[in-house]
Amino acid sequence: MKVVIIGGVAGGATAAARLRRLNEAAEIVIIERTGYVSYANCGLPYYIGGVITDRAKLTLQTPESFWNRFRIDVRVRQEAVSIDRDARTVSIRRLDDGSVYAERYDKLILSPGARPVDPGVPGTDSERLFTLRTVEDTFRIHDFVEREHPQAATIVGGGFIGLEMAENLRERGLDVTVVQRGSHLMPTLDQDMAAILHNHLRKHGIRVLLDANVTGFSALDEGIRTALTEGAPLDADLAIMAVGVAPESTLAREAGLELGLRGAIKVDEHLRTSDPDIYAVGDAIEVKHAVTGKPALIALAGPANKQGRIAADNICGIDRTFKGSQGSSVLKMFDLTVATTGLTLRAAQAAGLAADAVVLTPANHATYYPGSESLVMKVVFEQNTGRILGAQIVGGAGSDKRIDVIATAIRAGMDATDLTELDLAYAPPYASAKDPVNMAGYLIENILEGRVEQVGWSEALELAACEHGSEAGPVLLDTRTADEVARGSVEGALHVPLDELRERLDELPSSGRRLLVFCQSGLRSYVACRILTQHGFSCANVSGGYGFLEQTLR
Amino acid sequence: MKVVIIGGVAGGATAAARLRRLNEAAEIVIIERTGYVSYANCGLPYYIGGVITDRAKLTLQTPESFWNRFRIDVRVRQEAVSIDRDARTVSIRRLDDGSVYAERYDKLILSPGARPVDPGVPGTDSERLFTLRTVEDTFRIHDFVEREHPQAATIVGGGFIGLEMAENLRERGLDVTVVQRGSHLMPTLDQDMAAILHNHLRKHGIRVLLDANVTGFSALDEGIRTALTEGAPLDADLAIMAVGVAPESTLAREAGLELGLRGAIKVDEHLRTSDPDIYAVGDAIEVKHAVTGKPALIALAGPANKQGRIAADNICGIDRTFKGSQGSSVLKMFDLTVATTGLTLRAAQAAGLAADAVVLTPANHATYYPGSESLVMKVVFEQNTGRILGAQIVGGAGSDKRIDVIATAIRAGMDATDLTELDLAYAPPYASAKDPVNMAGYLIENILEGRVEQVGWSEALELAACEHGSEAGPVLLDTRTADEVARGSVEGALHVPLDELRERLDELPSSGRRLLVFCQSGLRSYVACRILTQHGFSCANVSGGYGFLEQTLR
Ligand SMILES: Cc1cc2nc3c(=O)[nH]c(=O)nc-3n(C[C@H](O)[C@H](O)[C@H](O)COP(=O)(O)OP(=O)(O)OC[C@H]3O[C@@H](n4cnc5c(N)ncnc54)[C@H](O)[C@@H]3O)c2cc1C
Ligand SMILES: Cc1cc2nc3c(=O)[nH]c(=O)nc-3n(C[C@H](O)[C@H](O)[C@H](O)COP(=O)(O)OP(=O)(O)OC[C@H]3O[C@@H](n4cnc5c(N)ncnc54)[C@H](O)[C@@H]3O)c2cc1C
Ligand SMILES: CC(C)(COP(=O)(O)OP(=O)(O)OC[C@H]1O[C@@H](n2cnc3c(N)ncnc32)[C@H](O)[C@@H]1OP(=O)(O)O)[C@@H](O)C(=O)NCCC(=O)NCCS
Ligand SMILES: CC(C)(COP(=O)(O)OP(=O)(O)OC[C@H]1O[C@@H](n2cnc3c(N)ncnc32)[C@H](O)[C@@H]1OP(=O)(O)O)[C@@H](O)C(=O)NCCC(=O)NCCS
Repeated sequence: MKVVIIGGVAGGATAAARLRRLNEAAEIVIIERTGYVSYANCGLPYYIGGVITDRAKLTLQTPESFWNRFRIDVRVRQEAVSIDRDARTVSIRRLDDGSVYAERYDKLILSPGARPVDPGVPGTDSERLFTLRTVEDTFRIHDFVEREHPQAATIVGGGFIGLEMAENLRERGLDVTVVQRGSHLMPTLDQDMAAILHNHLRKHGIRVLLDANVTGFSALDEGIRTALTEGAPLDADLAIMAVGVAPESTLAREAGLELGLRGAIKVDEHLRTSDPDIYAVGDAIEVKHAVTGKPALIALAGPANKQGRIAADNICGIDRTFKGSQGSSVLKMFDLTVATTGLTLRAAQAAGLAADAVVLTPANHATYYPGSESLVMKVVFEQNTGRILGAQIVGGAGSDKRIDVIATAIRAGMDATDLTELDLAYAPPYASAKDPVNMAGYLIENILEGRVEQVGWSEALELAACEHGSEAGPVLLDTRTADEVARGSVEGALHVPLDELRERLDELPSSGRRLLVFCQSGLRSYVACRILTQHGFSCANVSGGYGFLEQTLR
Repeated sequence: MKVVIIGGVAGGATAAARLRRLNEAAEIVIIERTGYVSYANCGLPYYIGGVITDRAKLTLQTPESFWNRFRIDVRVRQEAVSIDRDARTVSIRRLDDGSVYAERYDKLILSPGARPVDPGVPGTDSERLFTLRTVEDTFRIHDFVEREHPQAATIVGGGFIGLEMAENLRERGLDVTVVQRGSHLMPTLDQDMAAILHNHLRKHGIRVLLDANVTGFSALDEGIRTALTEGAPLDADLAIMAVGVAPESTLAREAGLELGLRGAIKVDEHLRTSDPDIYAVGDAIEVKHAVTGKPALIALAGPANKQGRIAADNICGIDRTFKGSQGSSVLKMFDLTVATTGLTLRAAQAAGLAADAVVLTPANHATYYPGSESLVMKVVFEQNTGRILGAQIVGGAGSDKRIDVIATAIRAGMDATDLTELDLAYAPPYASAKDPVNMAGYLIENILEGRVEQVGWSEALELAACEHGSEAGPVLLDTRTADEVARGSVEGALHVPLDELRERLDELPSSGRRLLVFCQSGLRSYVACRILTQHGFSCANVSGGYGFLEQTLR
């Protein structure tokens, strides 16, 4: 059996190694356009930032090591230019001399990845404008930075790669501006959670321009100008274009393979394309979203690695299926961790799910043990069933842990009550006896079982403002202590500290006016709502509390 | 409705708070023997160690704050001495004046916890011998340490509390000896994994005496002597007795409630005792082990908190069940994390399960990103089904994360293939594209699907030694590089580096001799086994590799 693999990194290299472990006799060839295989895409920004200093660390294997260990024939700087499915050959161009040859296959695996999206504006050919996908791209940026000692950088695009580049260039001392088309950075976050990230970037001296459309780039004497539809253009020494990636599916399309969403390669559960001898994996394929069940593009290394192994298994006669991706991801942004899994509230609603979310700010470990920090957690659930649909956590240590736990719970189809029952490891330096994940389950359960109603800040502020002056409209009620209120509250809010509430019920507006109750985190106001409800008041808990308002809406 | 709760800490205080949130009208009374409620049992060792310095931080609520917030009537320094189930009263002794009174209840919740096991040897009344369970115990030890400036401590018992005390006293500069009856510390670990912990304690200057039986304590002029069945007695300035806890069930027994394992209070899924008006929660009850389904005692704060809430719910007419504990736990020991969930291999086998385990030593995050450390992971599975039964991880940062993920997977009844499919969040500072948990799934899957056989080190060494000299017996094969071998290997092992294996197959003993193949971690030897198997050799992979041997058996 002869297997040819196009693309020698996450999906391709993993498939090749697994194929060899399964079959000593197979002939295995990897065709790779760049000069490197098995490279650490995800480490590239850190090489530019000087966090990783050894070039050798960027590649996990070389053609030689692949040969020595696995007898895999790796051909770098060769590009697959077409597939002849009838003849079962790939034609390959040697980039060093331009010569082309044909390679026969019994099975073909496509793992060509994705390419940076080209926004189609003028000036993208500037020498000072970079994209980042390969080792060569990395060295290009790195060498530019070393040589030119740039002072300022414009980053176009606020997804993973844009932000990792922003952090790394900022750590090297550059003035960094991130330009984002939409209303917030990181599409894996809802707007409110992203606001925390925006503040963090600003705290670290990065300028964040939202709702800004780039109309083109132009050369300056010693720099590059990024023009925007509105406002002054941005001048910098270099610019990075990171406005997303698109499936690298030209080869597949030209070979007549069936394509799906945004041109991604369509595969079945066995990762077979519409041609039974051709498999495809990684960023180039359309997958099933594990939560919505709908087609999705999820360009992440974990799924690519898993898919590579699954394709190899199926080629070797082991029946293995890929059941879908849920997009679990994590980003380090200075000392902040931004971790997500499954759907945002917005994505859940867009997918037609009756979804809601809770917001909580638990400590990452027992507060009496030194060094605890609070996490901001948003957990999205389905209203009728309590099924967990997604989660977003922004915070310090332990954020990634809770996301992985919830990712596992989502995988298992768990609901809110299941979260409350999770038996997680507790000791003061690591967690709380009620782990943040259990706590999220409690919050959701209380809503589902009708013990408390909740309202988001934007709705609460709107309701309270609209009805301002009206005798019957909703009233904001601040249940924090006088000290806390003195440090800031919402204008016009009534104030009765929780611990005095039972005695001061007669001070509250009667006649059925709805109370929108808040405290710092949502906990005391929840307790207040329980008291109020049982005393016949109509009330709702403002989700996330004043702390969340301060972190997100300011 | 009037609810009386005996014991005002993890289970009891949580039940009380939840009761109030559910029912403003209930009368809620907490009876607590010590002078404190809602105290942080789990933080107590750290107060002694000086890590927590503020006494106030040891209690999360006071009787006053409980009253102010929850209108809960907390009576400290009062002991429930008997229950009259017919009259539905509890008789209570005021410890300050010895007076006794009766308190009526509609529903009673028992959350009396556990008490330190008394080993029944002479001399336990010594003033220099301490146990640790309450705030008072803590101050007693703390004051002793502050006053007497002890130089040396003997810790009897190597479970959680013994080890946390060992760490904290060591951090204060004492010479610490831990005496353990069994062959290893921490019953939540298998022997091999515990060995890593032993080495770590020794590295931090703690003496570990295993298989040592304490026969009694006696006073020295200025100290305490701990006598052992064998060997010299241990002299120290103080001794801590921490040989486990026993359910505090005297009250329940005397009231005629049904008891179970080791005298623990029997409850149904709703946490109701054999008396429908009496609920019991926490360390005092017998639970169902979530993995074996058998009765178990699991004295941990997470389950106690969960159970307290469940009991309150049932009392208030919300149908809620406790489905069992799986004993997830974590311990910080200097810079090492020891985390476990579910069953050890030993416990699984003792429970009659056809269990096996894999050992792996993955990095906690991408090795090319600075600061990665390896975790030692042992994952226990059921042989016929691949169901995950338990896991133990000893290592640095990220150990607790993987245990919580596996704990969640166990809760969901996942098998090895499910682990391989978990969609976990990956970026270089946090994980690897194949997360350690996925990797554990791969290892198990390869065994279950017959792609590789494995053998443990003790069996491998025994087999190779027994058959030493015999022409047909098994042979150890070291597949590491010459450099690695030069730093140490197993005597008598053949040596062929993996990358030379294919060319040097003819150097291997033929005639069907079984090859017991190892490398540093098990990865290269697995690849070697795949090559050897396909070339007709009989072989097995030595689980965990030479690294595990070095860490565990030396
Ligand atoms: C800077 C950066 C940071 C990232 N960080 C993270 C992260 O933290 N976490 C995460 O999960 N993911 C991250 N990713 C995404 C992750 O790297 C990808 O999802 C993953 O590598 C996809 O694997 P793949 O095999 O599909 O494609 P790739 O790994 O991109 O490999 C595709 C290879 O195919 C080659 N190729 C394409 N077409 C041809 C052709 N016609 N002939 C020959 N060769 C061809 C390409 O040169 C490329 O080397 C990051 C990506 C980048 C660029
Ligand atoms: C030093 C130490 C460290 C620990 N570390 C951890 C850890 O890191 N992680 C973890 O999960 N668990 C840990 N635990 C265990 C955890 O604290 C217990 O599992 C948990 O507190 C059990 O809750 P409970 O309500 O059953 O009992 P407790 O919290 O012990 O509360 C029982 C209370 O009942 C009172 N009481 C008993 N009988 C009577 C009576 N007749 N009348 C009135 N009052 C009575 C007792 O005085 C006691 O205050 C630790 C325990 C200790 C002692
Ligand atoms: C380097 C690379 C080729 C390795 O592929 P690989 O050999 O499949 O992966 P690993 O080295 O992690 O080894 C995993 C294999 O070893 C086995 N293994 C790992 N530890 C083991 C142990 N202790 N004992 C036994 N087997 C072990 C696993 O079961 C698995 O084998 P299987 O797939 O046959 O089940 C590939 O991962 C790669 O190119 N990575 C870089 C590109 C990339 O992923 N980029 C994106 C992220 S930066
Ligand atoms: C202090 C103590 C009484 C608190 O009990 P509690 O009120 O049940 O617990 P918390 O303060 O964590 O609050 C949890 C409640 O607030 C709710 N909550 C928490 N954050 C919230 C938020 N942001 N918005 C809305 N509700 C929130 C939860 O849903 C839960 O309410 P519920 O049980 O009605 O669903 C109890 O935990 C205790 O005594 N602990 C110390 C003893 C101990 O546990 N020792 C062992 C470990 S050291």
